[in-house]
Amino acid sequence: MQVTKTVEETRKQIKAWKKEGKTVGLVPTMGFLHEGHASLIKKCREQNDIVVVSDFVNPTQFGPTEDLEAYPRDFERDSKLCESLGADLIFCPEPSEMYHDPHAFVSIDTLSETLCGKTRPIHFKGVCTVVTKLFHIVAPDRAYFGQKDAQQLAIIRKMVRDLNFDIEIVGCPIIREEDGLAKSSRNTYLSPEERKAALCLSKAVKAGQEAIHAGIPAEELLGKMRAVIEAEPLAKIDYVSMVDALTMQPVEKADRSVLVAMAVYIGKTRLIDNFSYEV
Amino acid sequence: MQVTKTVEETRKQIKAWKKEGKTVGLVPTMGFLHEGHASLIKKCREQNDIVVVSDFVNPTQFGPTEDLEAYPRDFERDSKLCESLGADLIFCPEPSEMYHDPHAFVSIDTLSETLCGKTRPIHFKGVCTVVTKLFHIVAPDRAYFGQKDAQQLAIIRKMVRDLNFDIEIVGCPIIREEDGLAKSSRNTYLSPEERKAALCLSKAVKAGQEAIHAGIPAEELLGKMRAVIEAEPLAKIDYVSMVDALTMQPVEKADRSVLVAMAVYIGKTRLIDNFSYEV
Repeated sequence: MQVTKTVEETRKQIKAWKKEGKTVGLVPTMGFLHEGHASLIKKCREQNDIVVVSDFVNPTQFGPTEDLEAYPRDFERDSKLCESLGADLIFCPEPSEMYHDPHAFVSIDTLSETLCGKTRPIHFKGVCTVVTKLFHIVAPDRAYFGQKDAQQLAIIRKMVRDLNFDIEIVGCPIIREEDGLAKSSRNTYLSPEERKAALCLSKAVKAGQEAIHAGIPAEELLGKMRAVIEAEPLAKIDYVSMVDALTMQPVEKADRSVLVAMAVYIGKTRLIDNFSYEV
Repeated sequence: MQVTKTVEETRKQIKAWKKEGKTVGLVPTMGFLHEGHASLIKKCREQNDIVVVSDFVNPTQFGPTEDLEAYPRDFERDSKLCESLGADLIFCPEPSEMYHDPHAFVSIDTLSETLCGKTRPIHFKGVCTVVTKLFHIVAPDRAYFGQKDAQQLAIIRKMVRDLNFDIEIVGCPIIREEDGLAKSSRNTYLSPEERKAALCLSKAVKAGQEAIHAGIPAEELLGKMRAVIEAEPLAKIDYVSMVDALTMQPVEKADRSVLVAMAVYIGKTRLIDNFSYEV
């Protein structure tokens, strides 16, 4: 497995592979890899000749009061995991390699303004921009994103369509701990007590999945889910919402394919979870 | 020469050429081609195995009160000119092929806020977005832009760097009529009387080129240029400015590489012209 730190060496290696007619898959990550990332890398390994993992904590998708500095990093462990999963290249640039007095950016309206976009107003602009950059550097045939970041996945899919990227976006299911907590690099922030409290998210998802049916009013469903979270003293709801699966706009009832998504603070840690429902 | 109207057929043909190892150059245009465009196509022909011309009046770069509907079109003539210059493919999509309920966009701050960006606040967002789309559809090795749209060229160069497009941007000099008027598709709007009045732009450029020297205060230079334009009763200045050649921000004197640019209304027609000065 190769490790590259610059755009130039990454591009050079990938061009050599492409010249041999090899297909390339990209798994964009912010590192501190867990089984969720591993599932993306495995899927990428199945579908492509070459597996590229990017490992970059992208500063432009963090707001000024967010956890950029605290965000967990462990490149040695990430590197070993990627190698064990059969990755061919891991691209881990410094921020200074990715951004030189940047002015151009990629963004998306409407889809970025609901759910996490309300609390994190610059987040998806940062995501769209860095993903565009990675797409241009790696030029993958396919790219892999987790369904856990459901709004991000919907936004990337729309961005790819709107901007005519010639890349197939592959979404992969949420991977959970045995007790149900969705895997996240941010779970490492939780104290033992908070770790228990965090179960209210997956419990609310389960309650939602059990209650949802075609045509159910959003408020009825979301009320049941909020009640699960509100029973947990350490939890504070950011949002629990039902939105159209494509547009990310609120819907009043489940009369089409929807995403039911939530963000909840457990102490200072903001966690997300969701499920989809197809009519 | 092939003529394509859809993204899919364009991509398919270009992939076939790339598979043969051929290099691809792109000349993005809004059609109604003149000798300025021809010079871009000729340069592209010299430097690439395959020459692609896009011919698309992009609606998203026109403001609501601008000349989208009136913008001159003559595909038959464009097509013949492209063929005579040795182009291999002309891509002329309908707006509905390029835009389906679009939400993602590419934009640039700072560089887009001066000069033409003041009068045309959404213009460069539209330009960045459509150029990104064309770059993704055609995947050129090189793309050709005229120096007449100097701010556009500076913005495209910065966008390519910031977003890591793997494309070489080639800027080509302004092509002028014999009497000095910069070639533009919009010159066709001018009445005979306005056509004469429009010479004040190139005369102001000439006056500026004769007066400029390292360290000259911007106001001294621009004053001389404005006087040339103000002597013409049919002309109304939008702006005459000196800006840093890279950042497009106003400078007080020519103590670095600068762009001296203007936009002037001749009757209802807005024309632009410029020159560069390197220290």
